[in-house]
Amino acid sequence: MILSKEHELMRKNFRNFAETEFTKEIQDELDETGEFNWEIWNKMAKYGFAGTKIPVEYGGQGGDTLSYVLMNEEFARVCPVLAIYANTPNSLGGGPLLACGTEEQLQKYLTPAAQGKKHIVFALTEPGAGSDPGSMTTKAVQDGEYFVLNGRKCFISGAPFADYAIVYARTDLQSKGPKGISMFIVDMKLPGVSCGKPEHKMGINGYPTSDIILEDVRVHQSDLLGPLHKGYAVAMKTLDGGRIGVAAQSLGCAQGALEESIAYAKERKQFGKPISYNQGISFMLADMATEIEAARTLLYTTAQAKDAGDPNASMLCSMAKYYCSEMANRVCAKAVQIHGGYGYIKEYKVERFYRDARIMTLYEGTSQVQQIVISRSLLK
Amino acid sequence: MILSKEHELMRKNFRNFAETEFTKEIQDELDETGEFNWEIWNKMAKYGFAGTKIPVEYGGQGGDTLSYVLMNEEFARVCPVLAIYANTPNSLGGGPLLACGTEEQLQKYLTPAAQGKKHIVFALTEPGAGSDPGSMTTKAVQDGEYFVLNGRKCFISGAPFADYAIVYARTDLQSKGPKGISMFIVDMKLPGVSCGKPEHKMGINGYPTSDIILEDVRVHQSDLLGPLHKGYAVAMKTLDGGRIGVAAQSLGCAQGALEESIAYAKERKQFGKPISYNQGISFMLADMATEIEAARTLLYTTAQAKDAGDPNASMLCSMAKYYCSEMANRVCAKAVQIHGGYGYIKEYKVERFYRDARIMTLYEGTSQVQQIVISRSLLK
Amino acid sequence: MILSKEHELMRKNFRNFAETEFTKEIQDELDETGEFNWEIWNKMAKYGFAGTKIPVEYGGQGGDTLSYVLMNEEFARVCPVLAIYANTPNSLGGGPLLACGTEEQLQKYLTPAAQGKKHIVFALTEPGAGSDPGSMTTKAVQDGEYFVLNGRKCFISGAPFADYAIVYARTDLQSKGPKGISMFIVDMKLPGVSCGKPEHKMGINGYPTSDIILEDVRVHQSDLLGPLHKGYAVAMKTLDGGRIGVAAQSLGCAQGALEESIAYAKERKQFGKPISYNQGISFMLADMATEIEAARTLLYTTAQAKDAGDPNASMLCSMAKYYCSEMANRVCAKAVQIHGGYGYIKEYKVERFYRDARIMTLYEGTSQVQQIVISRSLLK
Amino acid sequence: MILSKEHELMRKNFRNFAETEFTKEIQDELDETGEFNWEIWNKMAKYGFAGTKIPVEYGGQGGDTLSYVLMNEEFARVCPVLAIYANTPNSLGGGPLLACGTEEQLQKYLTPAAQGKKHIVFALTEPGAGSDPGSMTTKAVQDGEYFVLNGRKCFISGAPFADYAIVYARTDLQSKGPKGISMFIVDMKLPGVSCGKPEHKMGINGYPTSDIILEDVRVHQSDLLGPLHKGYAVAMKTLDGGRIGVAAQSLGCAQGALEESIAYAKERKQFGKPISYNQGISFMLADMATEIEAARTLLYTTAQAKDAGDPNASMLCSMAKYYCSEMANRVCAKAVQIHGGYGYIKEYKVERFYRDARIMTLYEGTSQVQQIVISRSLLK
Repeated sequence: MILSKEHELMRKNFRNFAETEFTKEIQDELDETGEFNWEIWNKMAKYGFAGTKIPVEYGGQGGDTLSYVLMNEEFARVCPVLAIYANTPNSLGGGPLLACGTEEQLQKYLTPAAQGKKHIVFALTEPGAGSDPGSMTTKAVQDGEYFVLNGRKCFISGAPFADYAIVYARTDLQSKGPKGISMFIVDMKLPGVSCGKPEHKMGINGYPTSDIILEDVRVHQSDLLGPLHKGYAVAMKTLDGGRIGVAAQSLGCAQGALEESIAYAKERKQFGKPISYNQGISFMLADMATEIEAARTLLYTTAQAKDAGDPNASMLCSMAKYYCSEMANRVCAKAVQIHGGYGYIKEYKVERFYRDARIMTLYEGTSQVQQIVISRSLLK
Repeated sequence: MILSKEHELMRKNFRNFAETEFTKEIQDELDETGEFNWEIWNKMAKYGFAGTKIPVEYGGQGGDTLSYVLMNEEFARVCPVLAIYANTPNSLGGGPLLACGTEEQLQKYLTPAAQGKKHIVFALTEPGAGSDPGSMTTKAVQDGEYFVLNGRKCFISGAPFADYAIVYARTDLQSKGPKGISMFIVDMKLPGVSCGKPEHKMGINGYPTSDIILEDVRVHQSDLLGPLHKGYAVAMKTLDGGRIGVAAQSLGCAQGALEESIAYAKERKQFGKPISYNQGISFMLADMATEIEAARTLLYTTAQAKDAGDPNASMLCSMAKYYCSEMANRVCAKAVQIHGGYGYIKEYKVERFYRDARIMTLYEGTSQVQQIVISRSLLK
Repeated sequence: MILSKEHELMRKNFRNFAETEFTKEIQDELDETGEFNWEIWNKMAKYGFAGTKIPVEYGGQGGDTLSYVLMNEEFARVCPVLAIYANTPNSLGGGPLLACGTEEQLQKYLTPAAQGKKHIVFALTEPGAGSDPGSMTTKAVQDGEYFVLNGRKCFISGAPFADYAIVYARTDLQSKGPKGISMFIVDMKLPGVSCGKPEHKMGINGYPTSDIILEDVRVHQSDLLGPLHKGYAVAMKTLDGGRIGVAAQSLGCAQGALEESIAYAKERKQFGKPISYNQGISFMLADMATEIEAARTLLYTTAQAKDAGDPNASMLCSMAKYYCSEMANRVCAKAVQIHGGYGYIKEYKVERFYRDARIMTLYEGTSQVQQIVISRSLLK
Repeated sequence: MILSKEHELMRKNFRNFAETEFTKEIQDELDETGEFNWEIWNKMAKYGFAGTKIPVEYGGQGGDTLSYVLMNEEFARVCPVLAIYANTPNSLGGGPLLACGTEEQLQKYLTPAAQGKKHIVFALTEPGAGSDPGSMTTKAVQDGEYFVLNGRKCFISGAPFADYAIVYARTDLQSKGPKGISMFIVDMKLPGVSCGKPEHKMGINGYPTSDIILEDVRVHQSDLLGPLHKGYAVAMKTLDGGRIGVAAQSLGCAQGALEESIAYAKERKQFGKPISYNQGISFMLADMATEIEAARTLLYTTAQAKDAGDPNASMLCSMAKYYCSEMANRVCAKAVQIHGGYGYIKEYKVERFYRDARIMTLYEGTSQVQQIVISRSLLK
């Protein structure tokens, strides 16, 4: 796709930053310790990456969706987990605030998040309720000026070091299903808020994930986000926006794996010549590159459609997320295969790309959830 | 992809024409008889479709590559073989002329082709030389003002009713490989020119294909096309342009099959409800639509890159051809499957789409040839 | 799989017969005319192939399931449609009779079928009821010693030349679903029985398929097959047995396509050497052969499990049908691809294998129906 | 496949042992520490699993290939890395000894290995020579009664704790390619032998892998294994035998992942019912089970063919290894997907199966190497 000069420049900057700052040492440390790296985060924040897509008036850079996609792609090309660092405030964290925060809430919560000074996370999923809002058991009961929250959220990326969480809780206890759910901005330091122990994950280590436990947490009514009982639709819309970010991470991850594979195939010799001379290898490269290019054009087009208010944008977001994430897994599996035994060793980048790619088909709506969204759109 | 208003209008016109004129009767007749339909051809010619991509000064419409893609897509969505009707003069037929014809040759041969008054076909392939120019045995030996051609070309689409053929023949008998091959415009009525019997094909019936046999055919030197000995590069470049047309036919074919499948899945009932209620069906539809959308964005982007002179355009053409044609086969197989036993019956459109789609991965460079082109580009 | 000497000998005989008798002329004629070939049929009958799996006391050869599988495989390796010729009396035609025919019915109907003197076909499917018995609308109303049948059956293979049909009709008009359905042996010459026009199919031409229309057909109660109202379970069991036959046809079809491809790849030269020297080709051959071998061992094992009364036999039949039929389509697509443009031409055998293979995933239960059967078995 | 009573009993015993002894605690510890677990090893040795396939006269159990396959399958079903524990002495370790060891060598080295008292590893691969013997640079130069070895072997599974290594070294320095390579039994305590640091791997942790470095290692000529200069053919034959073991591990791994997925799909509820009610889930289960069954029958048949001296056994070993290992990766990816986000968490078994499965397509000959072996066999 032919990008504007502005977008090309942005891409260059994102790439420069990632190639310079996301050193192998940092990447290895993230994978080994699983701990959040504050140093690299602060650098990212300084450059404004925490607010790429957030309006300037709330501390962000005011970029369009394509800019945000390019950032995710270029960062993930070097290190998928660091793409998630920058992505969160722009999507799941900031999304609900932007969608229906009051001016006061925006200034208080979004601005510091866009500046990378505070972390806001998105707390929707529960142990027994993945994509099914009807099973949500976290409750918020009004008590004077406060809501009292009780429940348990799971798989909350960033929870262990978050300052605030957007918590979804059932406020209309009579209702079932998606109705009667509200959003609250919960300060993680409030009494009764705690985190489970960080999950041991297959990949994207370095961005800790844990449960959030809420026990009689008193949240002031000024921290109710959006209209009472109407939070679920916002969650869905936020996920929609987040999907395009995951698609971009998938694309970057695949692109990184392709480049590693090309370099390896040209360098590695067997029987006196580079293995790239074998069609068994070169045809895999051709397949990888072709799928990546199809994914890229689908994704960029989706980004433009979203900003243009295309009525199909939501379906396109699901298509882009579905296609790019599945593609990334196919591509990374081939990348490992091209590396032979070396592809199984942590010293080689493709090993990590392979593990990181797997999350892409799972979070922010599994591939099956995307298939449901897409087919509903086709059949209506 | 967001098209310009002009392109949207063109698409509408192409679709209108196809839906109105490419009747089921014509389609069935094409498939049953295998014969060229002059009536529909003359209508297409009248509307200028034979020259969509050919400059106005040579009788064409002067459209860009994207217009040409939209025509192929929309025509193939209704009837792939009729897309080929309109495609040929714009690509393989007219391509070599446009690339290096003299003004006189252009006026004499391209203009009537662009107007649909004459048919020019592309005669490169030989029985023993598919993608290997070194094995080409057709020869042209100079004899005064004439070249004497001898040889046999095979799989020449349109040969049985063609007026002219662009024939590739070895002129430097010393050389091997791609060098020493020249192009000739051969009048099919010249003494010594004959056609083999039309091939019985799996699909795209109604556009006859046969061998062209050349026995001591005397071609005047004014019908040498381009510089002596330098024809092969033009062939490759022409195929390049043709590939984008095949990609568009594949896309249209897949789109048509998807639409048939959605309609069928909503209408066909089993166990008291439409079969579209089963994820076994609806997930196939989601997969089909997602791949189609990825293919479409890749193809349109490629069209734009080609017109913009992007240095990667040639690789992108191969990617688009490879991806779209393989995709069309996956999609059509699913379409047949969704139709159950009905998908195997000629009465249902998907049966024909399935057979027509198969040619797409074979002609104008098999998928394997595209993989070679793409991987060379990646590895250089 | 290591076969017994008896089975090896049988395989040799089936192969010999097929290679000798199923000439290219017959195959071409079948495909072109679509008409049943009585001459080859009579030869097959003479050798006893119509009754391979039918007990000796009813005119058959008394072979086990593996013999029947070997026959289907070897016949389909040369010509899939002729495998169906021999298969029908052994499976769908003879199955319901064997399952619950009285001695008199067996002597009267099964024996001539096993000897190839009469054709019995299986008439279950209706236009609005593929795999859903609840929607069956064909009715049989008792009237003295007769049942009066009215309805329409569709996709009945062999109907146009059949002598008898096993017709499923609802006898308990109160009931819905699979209960209340009975089987009748209907003489095709009875007043009120007629056939629709033969379907034009993608492939397996030469074994005509049509609707059977029943208008006030009076069937004597002696031709009620099995207990009243209990026919549907027999249909399901018959299909079960038929599936293993389709699996074997798929296997044979794939094996034939592989052998054609190996021969072609060794003979066809490009750039001065056989195309089999390219991994792009040879890896496809390796994939084809590997999948065929996996399919073969699954199928033979299933045949043995069925005869041994393995409680999983029914699930295994579905697995074998599902795997073999999908495999055959993957293999035949690769076979066409290896042949390049020639694979699209009817002169080459793979063109027909490709079209014939497609029916395998559709008839006697689509792949989706097999997935339902298998998953139910896994989840119970 | 219908197993003999003896084999059924063996399977039961292997399964019992694995389910009882391979506790979650041990598995977690293996994955976390990456260290060899001597306690479980000693138990395995006590039961004779180190010598399942080794003749009784050398301390083994004298089982056939099918027994060995069943052991690998049942162990890997619970824990793939522990299957490798038992597998090594039976295949790569013991293989070369069995193939050409003198009686003295067999008693001295094979017997303690079969009893699990000593570990022998297989040291063929070098950094620059995966499947290409011509690039082997490890040398052995004769010096009186000794050979002096110098070189570096890489990816040697079990090296860090091995007692002996079968080392391949070039003895004929004039020759290139597979000729002129000999085998030596190297005592890991000899001066000049050292190990690199253990590799950090994606999976199969708990069975350390490292380089072996040989610096002027003096090996007595009595430890030359097999005839001088003729070691490479033995390596190839050993790998052949090893491949069937990897195939069995793949099968077990897939089977384990399927069982976890069925249990999860029946238990996990969304929208008030188990997720197994969705075809999106149940069809994946059907596909997994079908492919597993095809793999199993192919593998068992291969084991029987190998013991029966079938001339195709070597090709079948490659087919079984190729099919089973690729299948295991497809199945484990689906298993993760069925688990949703939980599939990405180390607490769930499928997370580990997914990582462990990846080695299967890489070691003891990549999938591409198997494709080469198979296609050569087809084309000769």
